[in-house]
Amino acid sequence: MTDPLPPGSTIGILGSGQLGRMLSLAAARLGLKCHIYADSHGPAMDVAAKHTIAAYSDKTALTEFANSVAAVTFEFENVPVDTAKHLESLRPVRPGSHALEIAQDRLSEKTFLANLGIAVAPYAAIGSSAGLASTLSQWRCPAILKTRRMGYDGKGQVSLEADSDPDIAFSAIGSTAAVLEQRVTFAGEVSVLLVRGADGACAAYDIPANTHAGGILARSIVPCALDRDCADAAGAIARKIASALDYVGLLAVEMFDLGPGHSPSERLIVNEIAPRVHNSGHWTIEACAISQFENHMRAVAGWPLGSCARHSNAEMRNLIGRQAEDWQSIAAEPGAALHLYGKGEPREGRKMGHVTRLSPRTGHD
Amino acid sequence: MTDPLPPGSTIGILGSGQLGRMLSLAAARLGLKCHIYADSHGPAMDVAAKHTIAAYSDKTALTEFANSVAAVTFEFENVPVDTAKHLESLRPVRPGSHALEIAQDRLSEKTFLANLGIAVAPYAAIGSSAGLASTLSQWRCPAILKTRRMGYDGKGQVSLEADSDPDIAFSAIGSTAAVLEQRVTFAGEVSVLLVRGADGACAAYDIPANTHAGGILARSIVPCALDRDCADAAGAIARKIASALDYVGLLAVEMFDLGPGHSPSERLIVNEIAPRVHNSGHWTIEACAISQFENHMRAVAGWPLGSCARHSNAEMRNLIGRQAEDWQSIAAEPGAALHLYGKGEPREGRKMGHVTRLSPRTGHD
Repeated sequence: MTDPLPPGSTIGILGSGQLGRMLSLAAARLGLKCHIYADSHGPAMDVAAKHTIAAYSDKTALTEFANSVAAVTFEFENVPVDTAKHLESLRPVRPGSHALEIAQDRLSEKTFLANLGIAVAPYAAIGSSAGLASTLSQWRCPAILKTRRMGYDGKGQVSLEADSDPDIAFSAIGSTAAVLEQRVTFAGEVSVLLVRGADGACAAYDIPANTHAGGILARSIVPCALDRDCADAAGAIARKIASALDYVGLLAVEMFDLGPGHSPSERLIVNEIAPRVHNSGHWTIEACAISQFENHMRAVAGWPLGSCARHSNAEMRNLIGRQAEDWQSIAAEPGAALHLYGKGEPREGRKMGHVTRLSPRTGHD
Repeated sequence: MTDPLPPGSTIGILGSGQLGRMLSLAAARLGLKCHIYADSHGPAMDVAAKHTIAAYSDKTALTEFANSVAAVTFEFENVPVDTAKHLESLRPVRPGSHALEIAQDRLSEKTFLANLGIAVAPYAAIGSSAGLASTLSQWRCPAILKTRRMGYDGKGQVSLEADSDPDIAFSAIGSTAAVLEQRVTFAGEVSVLLVRGADGACAAYDIPANTHAGGILARSIVPCALDRDCADAAGAIARKIASALDYVGLLAVEMFDLGPGHSPSERLIVNEIAPRVHNSGHWTIEACAISQFENHMRAVAGWPLGSCARHSNAEMRNLIGRQAEDWQSIAAEPGAALHLYGKGEPREGRKMGHVTRLSPRTGHD
């Protein structure tokens, strides 16, 4: 634990998308400057004091970037580990390369979680279509075959039923190293948004219930249906993960909720972790005095964490692709808080913005 | 009324201080870009897509600026009227040069308000120390002598008691055109934060009670002590002003509250108007889903106004000069929302940041 970075310091952010943009806006509240580094222009660069466009493998540009900032963070988990390690040799990188390394490989992530005694869906490493065929012969379908790397928003995965052809499935994901997961029958999906400070202090937001459509998050609502005991159990899982990673920043842990028929300790199965601010936490901008973005930047800067208390109930809906074309009617809706990310064309599946609607607070106290 | 500017449009902002900074952050939520124009570097430039540093009289730079934006607004009322008029010949300027012209001259402002039948403190135009002596001989002190132009945060004014020397007083304010005002004995100070859209639609935030120290706003709290009838009367005054100016954007109207012994129509006296977002509205960032800054930018962009509803009570305190050095203890205070403006040295009287504290909502419904 070092001293907090003073106001006026510059934080480097790897990645120039909407998460970097919202991180940069949150940093600005605290009097912190941001320097965005990415391999192409993105909307975060419109709200940052400085930006660099260069390859993630460009050591010269990375060194110059590191020398211009006091600490580094990132907005996406597919930052190359070598990039993070190079930066780590020059400046604090929060969270660090270790968390990236675990989170960007589904097999490492599952193994890491299982070793911590955390419940995950049954899984197996797959390296070939023959291996897939052999594993499937011993498994009950349905299952999901996922690439070990570079999967997000439902990309790089394929569902398997009892009669699926292993060759077709393996080639559908690009004939690359993969993980086979048993498909879990769940009552719902939730996520824990935990922030851990540079001093190890932790705080967590109330847990949202998440709905996906086509593999992409569509909606998050707080409060979710978990009772206090289950919410505590979920929080304990996230804290265990953060502590094992010596994590600094906002950590999102996506979980399947098996439903009220299960005991608090058996009800939740971890689906995946994201070592960054998370789409299911966007509602914290309006429903909390301190958002996930600000708390992440506080942690990165070595500042005290802010309260995660929620003053209102909230529903966040993503605006994906052409859904953002409804911006005028959403802007006209009383109380709807519209966010647009300043991206260009509303391509299919592209997250263009979101809208948060507040209502008076209910839930645990 | 023209069509709303589409997301991705660039709004020009004259001025680079903390108000421009918070306007730029609010615009970013809506997918709007900002171009800051000012005669020196300021903290708004750290969060805007583009900035220009040039004199306010530089017609070439102003023309280039206007050509790069879709509409123009400003963060301070002392923008030279010629600057605004030049920009107005090229792009919509919201609010317009007329509002600036009225608000930046205390005598024009008082006359404008009086002509609308709005109660103001008794006042007289003063052009010389002899004129001041002559007026004082017919007046009851205490009174306040204020320069007609360029006064803010208590600058350019001097208090007069029965035994004050007119020569000393007139020279103390720089021997310049002035207004003498009767000092009002008030129970409190409040401000109406009204936003008026390009279509003439109006919405107002709940009215804060304001406390000044040394001529500078120290604290704003909502709700204030005004009952519903008085709050309605205050809102009606602000709407009358906005309508008379054909105003577009956020208008702040500062009022003296004479106290509960007066009828709703006689209880409030207008002190001054500010044709811009206002320090007494900073609490709207946390206590409302849509802040004064976002609503101003919505109006400037010709968008529908957002709701001004308040979900929480709030107290905003300015951090002035070295008060900002307490940032670590404020950051550690549960629930305190700290804002630092990214300025340099904490000079005496300089607004360095503010802190907003929320509590559960009470008040009118």
